Parts: sequence; structure tokens; C-alpha cells
Amino acid sequence: MSHPKNVIYAQAGGVTAVINASAAGVIEMTRHHPETFGKTYAAINGIVGVLEERMVDTSELDEAALNRLKTQPGAAFQACRFDLDTIDENPAQYERVLEVFRAYDIGYFFYNGGNGSMLTAQKVADYCSDHGHPVTCIGVAKTIDNDLALSHCSPGFGSAAKYIATSLLEATMDLFSMHNTSTKFFVLEAMGRNTGWLTIAGGLIKTVLPDVPLIVLPAERAFDQKAFLERVETLIETQGYCVCIVSEGLTDADGNYISIENIEHTQHNDYTQLGGVAHSLSGLVANTFNCKTHSAVPDYLQRSASHMVSETDWEMAYRAGKAAVQAALDGHHGVLPTIDVTSHSPLEWRYQNVDLYQVAELEKRVPDAFLTDDGMDITQEAIDYLQPLIKGERPVKFYNGLPDIAPIHFDLVSPMLSAYKAIK
Amino acid sequence: MSHPKNVIYAQAGGVTAVINASAAGVIEMTRHHPETFGKTYAAINGIVGVLEERMVDTSELDEAALNRLKTQPGAAFQACRFDLDTIDENPAQYERVLEVFRAYDIGYFFYNGGNGSMLTAQKVADYCSDHGHPVTCIGVAKTIDNDLALSHCSPGFGSAAKYIATSLLEATMDLFSMHNTSTKFFVLEAMGRNTGWLTIAGGLIKTVLPDVPLIVLPAERAFDQKAFLERVETLIETQGYCVCIVSEGLTDADGNYISIENIEHTQHNDYTQLGGVAHSLSGLVANTFNCKTHSAVPDYLQRSASHMVSETDWEMAYRAGKAAVQAALDGHHGVLPTIDVTSHSPLEWRYQNVDLYQVAELEKRVPDAFLTDDGMDITQEAIDYLQPLIKGERPVKFYNGLPDIAPIHFDLVSPMLSAYKAIK
Repeated sequence: MSHPKNVIYAQAGGVTAVINASAAGVIEMTRHHPETFGKTYAAINGIVGVLEERMVDTSELDEAALNRLKTQPGAAFQACRFDLDTIDENPAQYERVLEVFRAYDIGYFFYNGGNGSMLTAQKVADYCSDHGHPVTCIGVAKTIDNDLALSHCSPGFGSAAKYIATSLLEATMDLFSMHNTSTKFFVLEAMGRNTGWLTIAGGLIKTVLPDVPLIVLPAERAFDQKAFLERVETLIETQGYCVCIVSEGLTDADGNYISIENIEHTQHNDYTQLGGVAHSLSGLVANTFNCKTHSAVPDYLQRSASHMVSETDWEMAYRAGKAAVQAALDGHHGVLPTIDVTSHSPLEWRYQNVDLYQVAELEKRVPDAFLTDDGMDITQEAIDYLQPLIKGERPVKFYNGLPDIAPIHFDLVSPMLSAYKAIK
Repeated sequence: MSHPKNVIYAQAGGVTAVINASAAGVIEMTRHHPETFGKTYAAINGIVGVLEERMVDTSELDEAALNRLKTQPGAAFQACRFDLDTIDENPAQYERVLEVFRAYDIGYFFYNGGNGSMLTAQKVADYCSDHGHPVTCIGVAKTIDNDLALSHCSPGFGSAAKYIATSLLEATMDLFSMHNTSTKFFVLEAMGRNTGWLTIAGGLIKTVLPDVPLIVLPAERAFDQKAFLERVETLIETQGYCVCIVSEGLTDADGNYISIENIEHTQHNDYTQLGGVAHSLSGLVANTFNCKTHSAVPDYLQRSASHMVSETDWEMAYRAGKAAVQAALDGHHGVLPTIDVTSHSPLEWRYQNVDLYQVAELEKRVPDAFLTDDGMDITQEAIDYLQPLIKGERPVKFYNGLPDIAPIHFDLVSPMLSAYKAIK
């Protein structure tokens, strides 16, 4: 039997409220298998920290630190929005990854990210095995967007969905209580560039307020201004007010965003900054119906709300980390453990391994069956899907009135190699 | 001794997460004194419900309903943004209030609102006593804005402050964890038209993150674009990122709002809808420094977040209701119980009665001593003031993944009088 190899775990892409539970899952699981795994390093800033040799030796984290990790928002080891170039474009980048892997005797690479990050993990895996240093690369699923294919849902989504539905429920009760002499229309903007998963999660308020005058505008359906305004008018006329939830990435029939904050001149050329659709709809309704309107844009609040975590989602994130390590123990390579449902009611699930390449370029969108024919409301099928994912709460520890989530301090390992700058 | 008189309690102005605790306080306290108080009615939509004779007989609420009331966001009896006209303008309005008070044998009127609502309460009191039907009018303090004068703070503020500080803390940890390859500047917009109380509450994140690169822009200080951009630049250069909290009502040195959503054409002519300053600052920083930025506008979420209530604030709201009834029992009239601090550390306080007229037209702004000289950070004095107000948590009951806050159904009393339309 071969001697234990060391491990790198890293976090990539937009964070979730539970991504650090996955980190804890990986770290705990590798510790339990010293026959297979040596040290577990966590790279800072995802693959950037690998390239720049900025890493934490997680064996220095005691149980108290691991427990703090489990409740911390953001990416405790810092995530990155950084994809590797192609091998042809930038062979030096791949050589560097391999150099670091060799220097640290890395045999396992667990990459915690969304679809794009899985491609990075797979590229690294291929390069290493082509160059005589086979590294087991396993993905750890994560995204609030829930657009991960071949998985019942994505760890991170349930908590963001719980936050969105809770916030919309509370705001709706506020709106209801004042609509007679004040605001008639309130719209909440949910994250989701191409998919409306968090938007339809707002529809869960129907489980508490069955007759709520709600309009749901997911990114999957083109915005039909006429139909929208007609529905707003009907709801205000019949119920006195109207509440709306909209995807940040809502487009018109030609695929143009309803609203764009153009910052294309920044270094992030590939990334069009969204935001503003709620504000636009709010103005449209105010102008059309001569009434007071309000809009809310929780933005990062919805993906960092560690005070509003779904226990189900937390468990999925924690077990995503463990499942990735288990996949490595089982001899898998180049896979992503995804959630396979074995019973819908009550929800029972397990992790199954799918090919990284298979999942990397796919995007799961809200199915037609989850939306009513006019696309402005969700169906019972959607509620049946969403509700189990937001269920359960975790205790939140407070200190002096605020959640006790002060960051854990990590010491970086002393570099062994020459300096390397990943970001120009 | 005179026979018991009936009571009307009503809610007015922008709601808070704890306004219904005040309602419960009033109802419980009047129940305990049947020798003085007969039935306690709750008017729907504040003074509008009085005028239109839409009222609930709260003696029909059992203990379970009262307990639900204590945790419900929004105004359970619906609030109003509606001020009485002057007596000269609209004597019929005052005659109607008196007619209703006479028909229902009302001897006590408890009005739960902000500064403006106190004026309404006082006008009603004066008219009734001038017309031979003396009614004891007592205010019940409430506003998330914390701009109530002659009071240490306002019930409703502590919970909104806790929500804002928690949200900014979580979002800052998100931002920190990704700033190396993503967003460098994040700004949160807090409510506050003329006062920056909720904005400075964001400064409480310094108690968890002492070195956080934070800029605080309260409404009390004119926006100095040059100084702001210089500070952003310094913070991004030295710490890699910058987080900002700004009052919706921020103005430039000439008193012009940095951003205005002009809906002056609506029926709410006296009310300029704010919103958009965070979006504007986000764009300004992105354009100036060629970096990725984000903004969040929690809007109603910050005043309806019953899942994030400060125990201290809840207690203040609950006791505001009781103190109002106690003031009536003590023979006071035309007063508002306000919070008098008897010890600062630990915070000890009691209600004291101040004259309604005295408080109605005043506005408490953030004092200079709470802000650093450049006006872009808060002082230890501000932290010492704010921290006790957000302390303590209340248990939140969930059902199927969402807060168990379904509205209580109320039956309205059958009208005794001719119909009256308060809103044209």
C-alpha cells in the first residue's frame, strides 16, 4: 500500500452561507483516514493560493476552530473568481501548479466551487496525470444559484432560499399592514443571472399567505411588460397591493437585460454587473399607476446570511465535503459528488459521483412544470421541491448583540518555492 | 369613582419589527385594570380606522393570539400614513372622531407612532376636551429612525440596528473572502431620511472586525465626494477592499439628495421617495477606480425582520405599551412615555412622561460626538450608545422552514354609525 499523500482543499466562485461547512467536512474526513491522507492544506483564494503558495496547514486547527468554521459566512479560506488559462495559452501556469503539488507531495485536490470551478479542477487533474504526478481531483459542490446539473439541488441554495423567502414574507406583512395609505407595490431582487431558482423560492411565502398577491419573475421567462402591468393592476385593484420577486438577470424577449449597470470598462471584462431590475420595475409601476412603490436588493446579504441557514442545506454542504473525501477513498477521480434523492416525502438523499466534465458546462434551469402558464407564479410542484430544502434551523450564537462569527486567524505555511504572481 | 371607559389603540407611521409588542403591552395592561378600562378596541389603519369605524374588539383575542402578536412583523392592526387636517380645513373630520369616541364610550386613546403621529394624537385630545368629551390621549413611542426627541432611543430602532449591523457584518466577511479577485467595494443603504442612526449602527461591525476598512456616511454630514473617494482609494490600497454604509437621505453641501427617485407625480405629493444612493456610490467607485463594486438596499427588510429582534428593543416596545397605560392610570394626559436612562453600563432605563407637543415637532439627530472629525467613521461613544440597544435575542419559532408569523385573523366590530370615507 502506498504511503499517505497530502491534500489541498480550496474554495472558488461566489460564496454561500454554508461553504465552510464543506471545508469542515473535508478536513474532518481526511483526519479520520490518516492511512490515506497526510496533511490537509487549505489554499487561500482557491487555485490562486495554490499558484502563489499561500496555504494553511489545517492540522493546526483545533476542534474549537473547526466548530467556528462550521458557522462562518463567506469563504473562510477566501475564494476566487479566477479560471486557469488553457494549457496552450499559459503552460507556465500548469507547470506551477504541478511544481506546488510536487513540493507539497499532494495526491488529492478537493475544489469547492460551482460549475466553472469544476472545469478548473478537471484541467488540473488532466495536466498532472499527463505529467507523471497523478493527483486525485474531486469537486465539492457549492452555489446559491442552484444551477448545478445532475444534482437534485446545490449546497448553498437552501440557505439562500430560506433567507429570500423569510425576507419576502416579513416584507410582505409590512407591506400588507400599510398598503391602504402607503406603498402599493414592493419588489425584491434575487440573485440569479440565468436562472430563477432564488426567485421562485420567494414563492414559498404562499405556504404562509395562501392568497398573497404575488408576482414571480424568474430569469427563465422573458419579461412581458404588458402582461406584467395587467397583473399588477388586477392585484392592486382586487387586493389593494402587490408584491413581486424578480431575478437580477431578467431579460426581454430579445435577451436584453431589463437593467444593466455597465461596468464593462473594468478589468472584469467577462462579467457584466447586473443590478437594478427591481428599481426599474418599481419605477415602472409607480409611473404607470401613480402609486407609491418600494424595492429591495439584498445582494450579498442573501448569500452570506449565516444567521438564517437551512439545517437541510447545512447538512448537504457538510456532507458534500465528506462525500468528496469518500469518493477519493473509493478510488474515484475526476468526479463531483452530487445529490441523489431516494425519497421525496420526506426528503431522503445521498451523494452519488458524476463525471466532472459532464457537469462542468451544464446549467440547470427552473423547469416549466414549476411555473404557471403565464410564468408569473409557481406551481405546487415547485413548492414540493423547494420546501424541504429550506427546512430546519441551526442555533446561532450571539456575542454583544451580533452573531459570533469573528474570522478565524490562520497562519500561512512558509513558502518553499520561488515567488509566483497569479494575477497580473 | 367613575365607571370604566373604553379604549382605542391604533398604529401609525412606518412599522417596526416590534410594534406589535407595544400593542400586546397596551392590551395586557388594560385587561389588568378592569376598574378603569372597559373594552380595548384596536382601530385598523390608525386614525383612519377610527374615522371609518373599522375596529377590532381585542377582548376576543385569547392568550395564544396575544403571544402570536408579540412576534409578528408589520403592524398587526395595520398602520397608516395619514395625518388629520387642521380643524379649520376639515372640521367634519374632528366631528367624526368625536362621534366615534362617543358611540364607543371611549375614554382613552393610545396612539402608537412616530413624531408626526403624536401631533395627530394631541389634536384629537384637544378637540375632544374642547367639545365636552374628554379623552385621555397617550402616545406609544415607535420608530426605526431613532429620531424621537427627549428619549434615550426609540422602540423599534434597536432591532433595525441589529439587523443592519448583522447584515453588514455578514456581507463584509463575504466581501473580504473574495476581494482579491472580485468585488473591492460594497455599499449598504440604510433607512433614514434626515438622520443617520441606522447608518452609524453599521459601525458596530468594528466591535467584531476592529480593523475593518469601513466608511460611514450618515445623513447628518454633507457628502464630500473628493474626501470620500480619497478614503476609498486609501482603504483599497492598504487593505484591498472597502465597505461602506450610507443613509438613504445623504445630501450634498447644498442639501440636494445624492440620488432621488422622482415620483412626485403620485398622490403622495408631500413625500419624496428616496433610494438609489448606494447604487450611485457603487457606480461612482467602479468608474473612478475601475474595479468591481456591489450595492445592497434592504429597504423594508430592515424594519420587518422579526427574526432578528433585539431583546432589549423588544422589551422597550412591550413596556412602551404598558407605560402608556400606566400614564393613563396615573392621571396623565397628552403625554408620551419616553426612555430615561438611569444607568449606562449596564444599561438601565425606565419610562418617563413628556408632553406630546414638546416631542412632536422635534427630531433627534446623530450628535457630533458620535462621529469622527471627517464624519466618515463612528467614535467609541457611539459604540457605547448603540451596543446595549442591539443586545439580546428572542427565540424565533419556525414552521416548515419559515418563521411562524402567519397573520392573526381579526373580526371587525359591526359598525354602529353611518359610513364615512377618510381617504378621498
